[in-house]
Amino acid sequence: MPVFTEFASKSRDLRVLPSFALPLPRLTPPFEPTVNDGVERYEVVIVGAGPSGLMLELLLARYGLSEESLLCIDSKPSTLKSGQADGVQPRTLEVFKTLGISDEIENEACQMWQFAFWNTSSDPSRIIERKSVVPEVIPPARFRYEATIHQGRIERIMETDLLRYSKRGVQRDTKLIHVQLNEDDKEFPVLAEIETRGVRRLIRTKHLVGADGAHSMVRQCVGLKLEGQSLDHIWGVIDLVVDTDFPDIRRRCAIHSPAGSVMVIPRERIVTGEYLTRLYVQVPGMANPDGDIVGAATPVSEHDDARVRRQKVTKEGILKQASDAFKPYYLRPKSEESIDWWAAYQIGQRVSPEFIVNDSTGVPRVFIVGDACHTHSPKAGQGMNVSMMDSYNLAWKLAYHIHGLSPSSTEPDQPHPLLDTYHLERHANAQQLIEFDRKFSTIFSGQLDTEESGMSHAEFVATFNTGNGFTSGCGVEYGESMIVDRTASEGQDSPIRGDDYLSGILRPGRRLLNVKLRRHADGWHRDIQDDLASTGRFRVLTLTSNDLLSAQSVSARSLQNVSALLGTFPAGVIEQIVVHPQLPREFEWDSLPGCVKEHAEMRFYNGSELEDAYGIYGVDPHQGAMVVVRPDGYVGIVVALGDVDRVGEYLRRCIRTR
Amino acid sequence: MPVFTEFASKSRDLRVLPSFALPLPRLTPPFEPTVNDGVERYEVVIVGAGPSGLMLELLLARYGLSEESLLCIDSKPSTLKSGQADGVQPRTLEVFKTLGISDEIENEACQMWQFAFWNTSSDPSRIIERKSVVPEVIPPARFRYEATIHQGRIERIMETDLLRYSKRGVQRDTKLIHVQLNEDDKEFPVLAEIETRGVRRLIRTKHLVGADGAHSMVRQCVGLKLEGQSLDHIWGVIDLVVDTDFPDIRRRCAIHSPAGSVMVIPRERIVTGEYLTRLYVQVPGMANPDGDIVGAATPVSEHDDARVRRQKVTKEGILKQASDAFKPYYLRPKSEESIDWWAAYQIGQRVSPEFIVNDSTGVPRVFIVGDACHTHSPKAGQGMNVSMMDSYNLAWKLAYHIHGLSPSSTEPDQPHPLLDTYHLERHANAQQLIEFDRKFSTIFSGQLDTEESGMSHAEFVATFNTGNGFTSGCGVEYGESMIVDRTASEGQDSPIRGDDYLSGILRPGRRLLNVKLRRHADGWHRDIQDDLASTGRFRVLTLTSNDLLSAQSVSARSLQNVSALLGTFPAGVIEQIVVHPQLPREFEWDSLPGCVKEHAEMRFYNGSELEDAYGIYGVDPHQGAMVVVRPDGYVGIVVALGDVDRVGEYLRRCIRTR
Ligand SMILES: Cc1cc2nc3c(=O)[nH]c(=O)nc-3n(C[C@H](O)[C@H](O)[C@H](O)COP(=O)(O)OP(=O)(O)OC[C@H]3O[C@@H](n4cnc5c(N)ncnc54)[C@H](O)[C@@H]3O)c2cc1C
Ligand SMILES: Cc1cc2nc3c(=O)[nH]c(=O)nc-3n(C[C@H](O)[C@H](O)[C@H](O)COP(=O)(O)OP(=O)(O)OC[C@H]3O[C@@H](n4cnc5c(N)ncnc54)[C@H](O)[C@@H]3O)c2cc1C
Repeated sequence: MPVFTEFASKSRDLRVLPSFALPLPRLTPPFEPTVNDGVERYEVVIVGAGPSGLMLELLLARYGLSEESLLCIDSKPSTLKSGQADGVQPRTLEVFKTLGISDEIENEACQMWQFAFWNTSSDPSRIIERKSVVPEVIPPARFRYEATIHQGRIERIMETDLLRYSKRGVQRDTKLIHVQLNEDDKEFPVLAEIETRGVRRLIRTKHLVGADGAHSMVRQCVGLKLEGQSLDHIWGVIDLVVDTDFPDIRRRCAIHSPAGSVMVIPRERIVTGEYLTRLYVQVPGMANPDGDIVGAATPVSEHDDARVRRQKVTKEGILKQASDAFKPYYLRPKSEESIDWWAAYQIGQRVSPEFIVNDSTGVPRVFIVGDACHTHSPKAGQGMNVSMMDSYNLAWKLAYHIHGLSPSSTEPDQPHPLLDTYHLERHANAQQLIEFDRKFSTIFSGQLDTEESGMSHAEFVATFNTGNGFTSGCGVEYGESMIVDRTASEGQDSPIRGDDYLSGILRPGRRLLNVKLRRHADGWHRDIQDDLASTGRFRVLTLTSNDLLSAQSVSARSLQNVSALLGTFPAGVIEQIVVHPQLPREFEWDSLPGCVKEHAEMRFYNGSELEDAYGIYGVDPHQGAMVVVRPDGYVGIVVALGDVDRVGEYLRRCIRTR
Repeated sequence: MPVFTEFASKSRDLRVLPSFALPLPRLTPPFEPTVNDGVERYEVVIVGAGPSGLMLELLLARYGLSEESLLCIDSKPSTLKSGQADGVQPRTLEVFKTLGISDEIENEACQMWQFAFWNTSSDPSRIIERKSVVPEVIPPARFRYEATIHQGRIERIMETDLLRYSKRGVQRDTKLIHVQLNEDDKEFPVLAEIETRGVRRLIRTKHLVGADGAHSMVRQCVGLKLEGQSLDHIWGVIDLVVDTDFPDIRRRCAIHSPAGSVMVIPRERIVTGEYLTRLYVQVPGMANPDGDIVGAATPVSEHDDARVRRQKVTKEGILKQASDAFKPYYLRPKSEESIDWWAAYQIGQRVSPEFIVNDSTGVPRVFIVGDACHTHSPKAGQGMNVSMMDSYNLAWKLAYHIHGLSPSSTEPDQPHPLLDTYHLERHANAQQLIEFDRKFSTIFSGQLDTEESGMSHAEFVATFNTGNGFTSGCGVEYGESMIVDRTASEGQDSPIRGDDYLSGILRPGRRLLNVKLRRHADGWHRDIQDDLASTGRFRVLTLTSNDLLSAQSVSARSLQNVSALLGTFPAGVIEQIVVHPQLPREFEWDSLPGCVKEHAEMRFYNGSELEDAYGIYGVDPHQGAMVVVRPDGYVGIVVALGDVDRVGEYLRRCIRTR
C-alpha cells in the first residue's frame, strides 16, 4: 500500500520488544549506599543460582530491585548442563505462565498425561503385567499434565528472562566462603566473604538468601541443620534414548517386578528427533542409613565409606538392574552414545527447623530456600518445583519490605509479620512434602501385593491419587495467618458453598483456580490467571451478584466502595477484577457504575458464558462475594459482597496506606 | 537430594537450548563457488527484509541453506519501528505456530474476537447506532481470532528466530542498485549491483527474490509492471491511545456515520499498561485517481501533484474527521504523547502479471513476492499476511530445487514445474485478493442503506462474512496442478463425503484443518498441525479404516505398502502420520503392523476420542483414506485407502527417488 505522508513517534522503538512487567512502586528512598569503606553493599544477596536462586532473582528484578541493590552469585561457571530434576508440576507451569516464560516448556517438554502401574503377574510366564493407567494430574488445573524437561533448560529459560531485567544477571564463578550477622553496620548487618576466581572480598547486605542447595554453606554458617532420617534404599538414575518393546515406555510407569522396582519418566524430544527416557532403578544390597550426607559437617569416616560404596554403582549395574526388571520385555540403550547422564543416590528426608534468622532487633535477615532447607527423594518430582515455590512465596514479601510497601517495614524494633509468614507457610509445606515423600518412597521401594509388604496395588494407587493434589502443587494450602484470613469465610455467614477446595471452591490459603471468562470490552476469551501476572500486585476480585444493573444494588455500592478503598493505598499496588454472573438483560457500559469502566475496563468479565465461574468457585450468583488474591496467586480472604470493611482491614495488614 | 556419584555426556550442552529444526537433506554437492573473479556468488539472494523477505530467509535458513549460499539485503538500518500493518490472520498464526514463533503473538497481541457494525441511525438524535456484532473469524481454525500487533514486532520475532539459524542474518544498510539476467555465467546468471554505505559491489546468484515492497526495484529492473487501477478515496490512518466513551472501542468496528466512515482496530497493550487503537479515517474531498504511485517510474508532474496534496492531510485533520464520525460519542488522544504514528494513503489495487522471470533455458531465476507483486488497501488486513504466505509457498519449492530433491532439478533444459507452481498458485491468490479488496473497499468507503449507495447493511455484513474465509487465510484454495491433484477425490470413487471444505472436509489445494488427537504412545492430547512443523517435509497421513486390528486388512496392508514406498525416497523427506477411528476393541502395539511403531510411534493417534477427526475430514471410518500433505500444510492429494500407487505417483512428481 503506497503511502504518501507519514509520521512516527520516538517511543515506537519500545514497541518491537517483548513486553516488560511494570515494577512495583518504591516508597523508600532509592538505594544509594553512602558508606565508603571498600565493602560493597546490597539490599539483597542471593547465594546460589539453581532453580530457587534464579527464580528469586528473576522475581526481585521484575519487582523493581535495581542492579545496585540486588546481587546473585553462584560458584559454577554456567547453568546446569546435565541431569538432576526434570519434572515441572502443573502449579509451577501456572506460575511460569504468569511470568510469561511457560511457552518453551508447553511446546517442547514432554507432557506426561498418564501414569501406568505394572506389577508382578500372577501368571509366572508373563512375569509383569499392567494393572492400570490413571491420568497423571487429577485435580483441576490450567495444565492437565506434568511436563518433563531437563533442569538446565528450566534454568536457562529463567536466566534468559532475567537478562531482560538485569544486565549483570548472575555473578558466576563466585563462591560464598562465609557469612555471619555483624551488627556493626545496623543497616547492613549481614557480612559475607565471597571469592571470584581466587580473589576474596567482603560484602554487606540488608538481607541474604541461601539458595545454595542441599549442602548449603549459608545454612551451616548460621547454625541451622537439616533434621530427619535417611532410609536405606539406594537408587540409580539414568537418562538415555532406549530401544525397547515395553509398550508403556512413553508413559510414566511404576514397575514392581520380581527383580526390583523401576520408575519410567518419559522425557523431551532431543535434537536428533529421538526421545529421552529417564529410569529410576532400585540398586539392591547396598544399604547404609544416614550415609548420604556429604559435606563439611560429615565426619571423615563417613566420607570414606561413601567413597567405597560409590565405586560399586556403575552404569552397567544400573542398566542390568533395569533390564532385569523389564523382563519379559527387552530394554537397552539405543546406541553407545545414547546415555546422557547417570547417577546414584540414597533416599533421605530432611528439613531445617527454621527458614529465617533474625538480627538482634528481630528483623529477618537471613533466609534459606529450596534444597538448602529441605531434601527428599526425587521420585515424586518435587525438588525443583518446591524450591522455586519457596522463592515465589518469599519474593513479594521481601520486595514489599524493601520498597516500604508493607505497613511496619520502616518502624524500628517492630515485628515483621509479613516476612515471618515465609517460614510459617513454607516450613509447613516442606514438612508435608517430606512426610508424603517418605510414604511414597517406602511403598515404591517395596514389593506390592506380597505378604511381607502389607501394601496392596490398590493402596499404592490410592496413595498416589490422594498425594496428587499435593504433588501437582495445585492442592497446597497455607495455614491461617495475617495473610490467610478464614474468619469471614467459615461458618454460617460464609459466602462460599461447598468444600471441594481442590476443585476450585474458594478457600483462603489456596491458589485461585483458573477459569475461562469472556471479557465485556472485546469478547476475548480469557483465563483469569492471566490477570494474576507475577508483578507483585494484590488483586481485589469482585464476583458481583446478579443485581449489578440496578443503580442502588449491593453490587454497585460494593464496587464504588472498593474503588474508594483502593484510593487510600499507594497507586498501582492493587488491581481490580470484576466478574458478573448471568444478568437479567443485555447491557452497555452506561448501565454500570462508572468505576467499573474507570478501574477495570479490561478486567471486567462475563463469568457464566464460557465456564460457570460462580459454580466452580462456590459462589451463589444471588449473593456474590469479594476475594483478595495475594501477589503469589493465593486467596487471602473471601468476604460477603458488600463487606468492604473487612477487605480494607486485610489489605491494611499487608500494605501501608498513603 | 544428595547424590554420591554422577556422570554426564558432553552432548547435554545442546539440551539447554530451544529446539532447532532439522535441515532438509541435500543431494546436490555442498555449495562452494569456485570462480575467483572478485564477484561474490550465492544460490539465493533476497532483496528486502520486510515481512516477505524475512519469512523467506528464515525458511530457507531452517531448510538448510548455508550462510555462504544465502544472502538477504535491506536498505534500511533495522527492522521497522513504526506503523504499517498490524493484522495477523488466523492462517498466518497457524503457520507461525508450525515455526514455533507464535507464542509472543498469542500472549501479547490484541486478539480481535468480534466485529461490530455501526451505521447512521434512523433516530437523528442518536446519530449512529450499533447494528450488529459478529465473530471476527468464522471458519474453523486453530486460532479463532485475528491478532493485531505492530508489524515491526512481527519482523523482530522472525529476525530473532532467524539469528538462531544464520549468524549474519540480514545484511542491512545494503541497497539493490540494479539487477539483470546475464548468462555469461550460466550457473549464476543473475547479476546484481548492490551498495553498502556508499560502497558498490557486483554479486552473482543462481536465484534472486524481490521482496522489496510496493516500489520494487527488482520488479522494475526485470520489466514487470503492476497492473490495475487506483480508486479515488483518500484515507488517513493513526495509531494512538484514545480517551473515549464509545462503547465498542475494544472491538473491531466499521462505522458509517453521516460525517464519513471510520474503521476501528483495537491494538496491543503497551509498556505503560495502556492499549493502542488504530483508526482508519476517510478524508473527504481529495480525489485523484492513479496519483498514488510515487517512485522512479512516476513522471515529475505527478510527483509535484502528490506533494501538494500531501500537505493537505494533517494529524489534526485526521483527528477532526474521526471525532466527527464518532459523534455523539467523544474521542480524543489520551494525551499529547499518545499518538504513535499516522499516515495518509490512497486505495489502489494492482497486481503484476508475472511473478517469475526465467533465463533463456527456461530456468526460473527471478521471483517477486509480497507487495512487490501486489498492492491493495490495508482495511482487510491482508498485506503482511499475503506477503508472508507468498514466501511460505515459494520457500520449500526453491529449497527442493536447490537441494536436488525435486526430480527434474538437475537435468538441463527441462521444465521446472514445481517452481512454476509458485506463480500459478500465488498469482491466482493475488487476483482474488485484489478483487475482494476492491469490493470491500468500495462498499466500506460508501454510505450504507442510502439511496445512492445501493448497498444495504445486510449486504455489507454478507460481503464481510463470505470474504472471511478468504481474508482469514483459512479458505484459500489453490487450483489444480502437479502438486494439487483432485483426480482421485472427485466423482464417485472419492473417499471423501461432503463439500464444506471451509469446515475441514479434505480437499486438495486447501490447508489441512487442525484437529485434536490423542496419541497412542502416551495419551498426550495433541494438535495434528504440530506434526506439520515447517521443516520442509511432506507427510503421508493415513486415516485407517476400522479394520486396522486384523492382520490382513486393507488398513494393515496399506500401512505396510506406504512404508515400503517411502523407502524408495531419500531418507528423512517424508514423514508418516497414522490416525485410527474408533476400533472394536482395546489394543496394544503388538496388535498393529510393526511398521506403525517403527515409522510412526510418536505420530500414531486415536482420531475419535477428543474430536471426531473422521467426521471433520469427511472420511468414512469404514473406508479410511490416505492424504499427502505438502510441506506448506496444504493437501496435495486424497486417495482411497489402499491406493498407495497413486500416492507414489504424486510423490514421484515432487521428490526424486533414491
Ligand atoms: C539426580 C537428581 C534427580 C532429581 N530429580 C528431580 C525431579 O525429578 N524433580 C524435581 O523436582 N527435583 C529433582 N531433583 C532435585 C532438584 O534438582 C533440586 O531440588 C533442585 O535443584 C533444588 O534447587 P535449589 O536451587 O534449591 O538448589 P540447587 O539446584 O542445588 O542449586 C544450588 C546452587 O547453589 C550453588 N552453590 C552451592 N554452594 C555455593 C556457595 N558456597 N557459593 C556460591 N554458590 C553455591 C550451586 O553451584 C548451585 O548452582 C533431583 C536432584 C537430583 C540430584
Ligand atoms: C499504513 C499501512 C498500513 C498497513 N496495514 C496493513 C494491515 O493492517 N494488515 C496487513 O496485512 N498489511 C498492512 N499493510 C501492508 C503491509 O505493510 C505490507 O503489505 C507489507 O509490509 C509487505 O511486506 P513486504 O515484505 O512485501 O514489503 P515491505 O514491508 O515493504 O518490505 C520491503 C523491504 O524492502 C526494502 N527495500 C526496498 N527497496 C530496496 C532496495 N532497492 N534495496 C534493498 N532493500 C530494499 C525496504 O527497506 C523494506 O524493508 C499496511 C501498509 C501500510 C503502509
